[in-house]
Amino acid sequence: MADAPYKLILLRHGESEWNEKNLFTGWVDVNLTPKGEKEATRGGELLKDAGLLPDVVHTSVQKRAIRTAQLALEAADRHWIPVHRHWRLNERHYGALQGKDKAQTLAEFGEEQFMLWRRSYDTPPPALDRDAEYSQFNDARYATLPPELRPQTECLKDVVGRMLPYWFDSIVPDLLTGRTVLVAAHGNSLRALVKHLDGISDADIAGLNIPTGIPLSYELDAEFKPLNPGGTYLDPDAAAAAIEAVKNQGKKK
Amino acid sequence: MADAPYKLILLRHGESEWNEKNLFTGWVDVNLTPKGEKEATRGGELLKDAGLLPDVVHTSVQKRAIRTAQLALEAADRHWIPVHRHWRLNERHYGALQGKDKAQTLAEFGEEQFMLWRRSYDTPPPALDRDAEYSQFNDARYATLPPELRPQTECLKDVVGRMLPYWFDSIVPDLLTGRTVLVAAHGNSLRALVKHLDGISDADIAGLNIPTGIPLSYELDAEFKPLNPGGTYLDPDAAAAAIEAVKNQGKKK
Repeated sequence: MADAPYKLILLRHGESEWNEKNLFTGWVDVNLTPKGEKEATRGGELLKDAGLLPDVVHTSVQKRAIRTAQLALEAADRHWIPVHRHWRLNERHYGALQGKDKAQTLAEFGEEQFMLWRRSYDTPPPALDRDAEYSQFNDARYATLPPELRPQTECLKDVVGRMLPYWFDSIVPDLLTGRTVLVAAHGNSLRALVKHLDGISDADIAGLNIPTGIPLSYELDAEFKPLNPGGTYLDPDAAAAAIEAVKNQGKKK
Repeated sequence: MADAPYKLILLRHGESEWNEKNLFTGWVDVNLTPKGEKEATRGGELLKDAGLLPDVVHTSVQKRAIRTAQLALEAADRHWIPVHRHWRLNERHYGALQGKDKAQTLAEFGEEQFMLWRRSYDTPPPALDRDAEYSQFNDARYATLPPELRPQTECLKDVVGRMLPYWFDSIVPDLLTGRTVLVAAHGNSLRALVKHLDGISDADIAGLNIPTGIPLSYELDAEFKPLNPGGTYLDPDAAAAAIEAVKNQGKKK
């Protein structure tokens, strides 16, 4: 086992087709837009420029994170490293809101309910029917999961609960071997991980946004606590600007 | 363990930048051309149309095979399956010929020597110096290999020797669990595998060409011998035409 500090890099996927259309996405498997592809490539260039080269990558089983990892690693000339994918790194399941327009949902349910679904730690949106259009209940990639593990909706607390076993069982062992680990995932699975790493309270996590396409680098001590709390964005100015933009996303008409 | 028959699919990467330029490539990590990308996508469409959906994919650590797998799996909507990469699936190392023009090499050394290097089972090209321009001796992806495992040239016999441990140790166990396995690799690493599967003699393997971008499907019995010797191309007409084209490749001016 290698000694600390351990090197962890988080990368949130860039713009997807449904980000662009302002729809709730969750577990629906949409692709990146050309803008999202460019963000991923830029993320890889930032890694290369910083000399922060991943030895192994972990992704969700969703195309937008998978392709973000592929494009970023190609840009960093690390396309050949080992890859692991797991549903525990997926985006939060958005329940019955999946496929719905964000602005329309805001207008229909009002800002209080809307922000509760988006930002409360423990209030999930209404459950999505198993046979609904945007359900993943018959998706082949989840065929080996017992039904009770397949969400029909999730709050951030649920994401923390199902993501952490993957952190402990699969990512930490890679860090322990001294490898630089890249996790290419989603807004909420990464918020769940950052909440755990930085010890952010249930209340305070609501205010934390992770910008897309900008690698967030952590150095972790022997107990996997950050030596740089909050992490370090490889492009801090772009990160600050993007965090502002994400905050205003719910208000987009 | 699942019962036979076991399902194995071989896919050779499509046109690379150096195929297009008619240069010997070997372990040099060149990309696909746009034509090669289309071949990969078409390969995935053939899988999808045949309902032959991979559950797991194995690739080399070379970009042209990695991207072929990515593009084919995206086209088949299987981008989310587990991925394994290994140098034992790499193309044959072409020694001192790496980076050289094929037509110029033919003119310089004559057809007999040229065809010996290209097609003899046990005569490797001259070794490539460790510090030569197209050497991979300092390539980070091979950093964990002891130097005696890092080839400076290879004949097909060498490829069989270094590829088979991966077949037995990593691919066969996946087949035994009942998974449909895709191997996305190279002309010579796949010829080495087909030689083993079909029991082709050292002499006869010289005449075997595997076309690019057309999935070659095998059903294997309980002893991993083909129930369909020679395999089944998912587009037999295109495969036959492509095999002819590959045969004439060395004669291209």
